[in-house]
Amino acid sequence: MQNFVFHNSTKIIFGKDQEQVVGQESVAYGKKLLLHYGGGSIKSSGLYDRVVSSLKEQGVEIFELGGVKPNPRVSLVRDGVALCKENDIDFILAVGGGSVIDSAKAIAAGCKYDGDVWDFYTGKAAVTDSLPLGVVLTIPAAGSESSAGTVITNEEGSYKRATGHISLRPRFAILNPVLSYTLPSYQTACGVTDMISHILERYFTNEKNVELTDRLSEATLRTIINNAHTVLEDPTNYDARAEIMWAGTIAHNDLLDTGRIGDWGSHDVEHEISGIYDIAHGAGLAIVFPAWMKYVYKHDINRFVQFANRVWDVEIDLNNLEKTALEGIKRTEQFFSSIGMPIRLEEVNINEEHFDEMAKKGTERGPLGNFVKLQEKDVRQIFNLAK
Amino acid sequence: MQNFVFHNSTKIIFGKDQEQVVGQESVAYGKKLLLHYGGGSIKSSGLYDRVVSSLKEQGVEIFELGGVKPNPRVSLVRDGVALCKENDIDFILAVGGGSVIDSAKAIAAGCKYDGDVWDFYTGKAAVTDSLPLGVVLTIPAAGSESSAGTVITNEEGSYKRATGHISLRPRFAILNPVLSYTLPSYQTACGVTDMISHILERYFTNEKNVELTDRLSEATLRTIINNAHTVLEDPTNYDARAEIMWAGTIAHNDLLDTGRIGDWGSHDVEHEISGIYDIAHGAGLAIVFPAWMKYVYKHDINRFVQFANRVWDVEIDLNNLEKTALEGIKRTEQFFSSIGMPIRLEEVNINEEHFDEMAKKGTERGPLGNFVKLQEKDVRQIFNLAK
Repeated sequence: MQNFVFHNSTKIIFGKDQEQVVGQESVAYGKKLLLHYGGGSIKSSGLYDRVVSSLKEQGVEIFELGGVKPNPRVSLVRDGVALCKENDIDFILAVGGGSVIDSAKAIAAGCKYDGDVWDFYTGKAAVTDSLPLGVVLTIPAAGSESSAGTVITNEEGSYKRATGHISLRPRFAILNPVLSYTLPSYQTACGVTDMISHILERYFTNEKNVELTDRLSEATLRTIINNAHTVLEDPTNYDARAEIMWAGTIAHNDLLDTGRIGDWGSHDVEHEISGIYDIAHGAGLAIVFPAWMKYVYKHDINRFVQFANRVWDVEIDLNNLEKTALEGIKRTEQFFSSIGMPIRLEEVNINEEHFDEMAKKGTERGPLGNFVKLQEKDVRQIFNLAK
Repeated sequence: MQNFVFHNSTKIIFGKDQEQVVGQESVAYGKKLLLHYGGGSIKSSGLYDRVVSSLKEQGVEIFELGGVKPNPRVSLVRDGVALCKENDIDFILAVGGGSVIDSAKAIAAGCKYDGDVWDFYTGKAAVTDSLPLGVVLTIPAAGSESSAGTVITNEEGSYKRATGHISLRPRFAILNPVLSYTLPSYQTACGVTDMISHILERYFTNEKNVELTDRLSEATLRTIINNAHTVLEDPTNYDARAEIMWAGTIAHNDLLDTGRIGDWGSHDVEHEISGIYDIAHGAGLAIVFPAWMKYVYKHDINRFVQFANRVWDVEIDLNNLEKTALEGIKRTEQFFSSIGMPIRLEEVNINEEHFDEMAKKGTERGPLGNFVKLQEKDVRQIFNLAK
């Protein structure tokens, strides 16, 4: 087990009706607030009115910036930074899913920086301080509600890049599973895939002695898998929605990192695809992850055997560990397919046209991943396996 | 799943040599520090010198209060409060195990209160604020290093009582598994028993839909069970010591509470025993928990069957669920015995003499537990089963 620091101070406020406390939680950070959100769904659902009413009860002055899109754009972030700086905003409230939260984090970091916020994503500058932010979560998926990271897309050049800092961890996150009832099936399934991927990125590590972290990861994976079909078939099943929502946070709150270095190669490979093609991140992961697994499993057969056995209940064939490992990969792929995810690029009409370009761009800052270091040619091979 | 708030802001600094950062972590809270510890072991091991040197490097002025005993006494806490108030102490550093940390927490709370600190433990007053505190952990067991609770014994009347408040959560906890290498086997086993009990207290709940919390609990239990014999047979096995130490924190950092109300009857019953007899808390729990299980399992056979199956790999006998449940209880008891714990009161020379008195005193503020509410007569029966 490697030395580690684990410090997650996000206050999780979980359960029915909990958005009603958003005003009292927010006002602790100041009276001038930026309300950041996506499209109209929070207005048609009534959530917007409930949030605004709770904020106004506490005398909070609200500035608004809606319009965040999936794969959130740096251009809107720049607008947000300007708005906050002009109005001396104290606190940013993100109401939405991972895209809205990541966009809010980028604004929060940009407010404490004189240069262009995109500098944080290219590595030209590092985040050292941010405006405080809070979250009302509507889409269980990205885990951004208690993570310290943010992913933003720069539409000039189709770059999708990540950065992070402890100051970007939301001060509070309100998780009401009922808010996820109205999510379309496809988006629910994308969220499930994203959270599973967050765990797998951490699970495939070269660190050998991480039993507790492994078992906590397997526990979270099994819970997600066990409840995924229920939420798709019965979207208003509170208990299943609650399991999925809480698991999505645990999948990405850094607990499952403890004692080891994760991989994150699949995420980086997927970012190349969704940077160009603008497909849902979860759908991209359902395609990339099984391909990545097929490409790297020989690097540590035992870890893939453990995964197959403990997560998918595949019996261990001691005379053919490779068969056991491959069965685990097959079950993962079948599961993604069973919840309606694409598992091949052709299913989302992506052909070989940009394979070379994506492989080159993805590795231009160095090889991807840690479990196995992926060079340009490896990324190209993974695209081939994902065709 | 019930609504919940989960907010654990303790910064965990885990791994080899990590006590070297104690100075820089502490100085953030002020320059005048109370160093609180137990007996001479931290001096003979060299830990005391390393801690003092790290603090002095940061220019911290150190006030000292040693002498904390197992089942920490309110009299020493009162001395600590007086010392802190006289010297305007900014920060309390606990170096030791659960007793030292709980004593430090009591002092931290007492410093912000004009009355007698014992008032917090009788319910006469509630903690609302405390001095900040930090921890260098030497004994993985109590989980107090990131919990918000404290248990103190009042030697006048042999009362052992608990209280808690979010301000009592340590700001940081340094967990170096190497510091636990020199623990005697008995104390190691007591720690293992304590952490298992912390999980079981939360696991036996009347809440039906807590799949993720159940699975995370089972993962932590399996890890502890899997490493317990290793640390006893090979006390300097870093990886096994690390699993046990990290699991001890997870067992009690409130993650395994999420979505449900735990029981805590066994802890309360044990506090009556160790309040009078001054036996190790872990040893008391190894005796009380199996007796409690035998007394209450019929209240929810399915939960005991799940426990037997998922934690102890007992196959489920669908035609005889009671047999499966009882097998899980038997395995728990056998495990405690296998690590050198007593499992009957007679093994620690406790006879029936105080059974009535302990049952009466334990329930004088109301019934104990939540899974099953234990009245005086029930507690008396549990003592009988533990004879």
